[in-house]
Amino acid sequence: MIRLYSAARSSASFRVRIALNLKGLDYEYAAVDLRGGEQLGEAFRAVNPAALVPVLEIDGQRLVQSLAILEYLEETRPEPPLLPREPAARARVRAAALAVACDIHPLNNLRVLGYLGRELQAGEAARNAWYRHWVVDGLAQLEAQIRAGGAHGRFIEGDRPGLADLCLVPQIFNARRFDARLDHVPLLMGIFDQCMALPAFAEAQWERQPDFA
Amino acid sequence: MIRLYSAARSSASFRVRIALNLKGLDYEYAAVDLRGGEQLGEAFRAVNPAALVPVLEIDGQRLVQSLAILEYLEETRPEPPLLPREPAARARVRAAALAVACDIHPLNNLRVLGYLGRELQAGEAARNAWYRHWVVDGLAQLEAQIRAGGAHGRFIEGDRPGLADLCLVPQIFNARRFDARLDHVPLLMGIFDQCMALPAFAEAQWERQPDFA
Repeated sequence: MIRLYSAARSSASFRVRIALNLKGLDYEYAAVDLRGGEQLGEAFRAVNPAALVPVLEIDGQRLVQSLAILEYLEETRPEPPLLPREPAARARVRAAALAVACDIHPLNNLRVLGYLGRELQAGEAARNAWYRHWVVDGLAQLEAQIRAGGAHGRFIEGDRPGLADLCLVPQIFNARRFDARLDHVPLLMGIFDQCMALPAFAEAQWERQPDFA
Repeated sequence: MIRLYSAARSSASFRVRIALNLKGLDYEYAAVDLRGGEQLGEAFRAVNPAALVPVLEIDGQRLVQSLAILEYLEETRPEPPLLPREPAARARVRAAALAVACDIHPLNNLRVLGYLGRELQAGEAARNAWYRHWVVDGLAQLEAQIRAGGAHGRFIEGDRPGLADLCLVPQIFNARRFDARLDHVPLLMGIFDQCMALPAFAEAQWERQPDFA
């Protein structure tokens, strides 16, 4: 049995939900209440000492870090593929995924926004400006990177959704929540729409999860 | 010919320098002056529209994002390996690398510290406290994650340096620069010492680069 420790609005959890759906893998959903601080409690620390979701229990192992989980799924359940075959194409897809996972998302998660308010006395307007700055700038960089790569089609790489698309989609959900502008990244938004037309993406979204609130 | 666009103190560039050394690959060093804003100029934007180092020119391609570059090197130049063979072990190593690359480093780079000062009027003490918070907390989480995995030896996974070690070492350099405490992560510091005893790591460090200042 596969079990995913997840939170509905967690972008990293959302990525793994899409991958499990794309690969047709059934899983048990174990909700972790991030706003209530459940990840910091002793019970969840026994699951992941780093106190982060997602955690995937699979093949008798506990895996952490969403991108490591996705690579594991790709190596052990290769169909349908999340990465192309050719090394330079794989590097392009991974680079796009990392542009979201390293350059945008870490600046905007709950614990960072909490620190800004608590320790730096940043009010809601300043926190929102911070959020929008990194997401607007980061998505513009990602769009430029994908255009420079020249391999995009209906999706970030060609006409099949993959590792980078399933990082993009949760980031767009997040951007909309903070009313960040998105009209400057038409290529990304076209790809987002293509993704959301697929059940694997649509069923992984926030409001379809049992812990959505 | 292989060319690396790099900055001496850039952690992400440092990771790639170690990997090139470990795999015995000669390369041309192309310095990018980050403090002078060279990455934002037109000439470098033509190399990487996302305005970030490192960029690796190899096999007629330009590759971006350090972890994508490392995976490409591993796929095209597999010896000596940066990842173990078994999928669960590969997932552990990647998870440790990502704990640095996603959960610590993005919060502490130059552009983020700049924003804190410029937009949030955070003074030097507040910026240093921010820095130390994420690095002290993040390294503690990484140490707990590695201990939970139970596969560490002289290095993060067994007795061979790999993908996670070459993310750890630049982060420790950075932590020391900001006088962050490190006595709470003895396992990581022991691994750091093992790494720095190897020429591939020692020759990749800041002060050995032509643009060190």
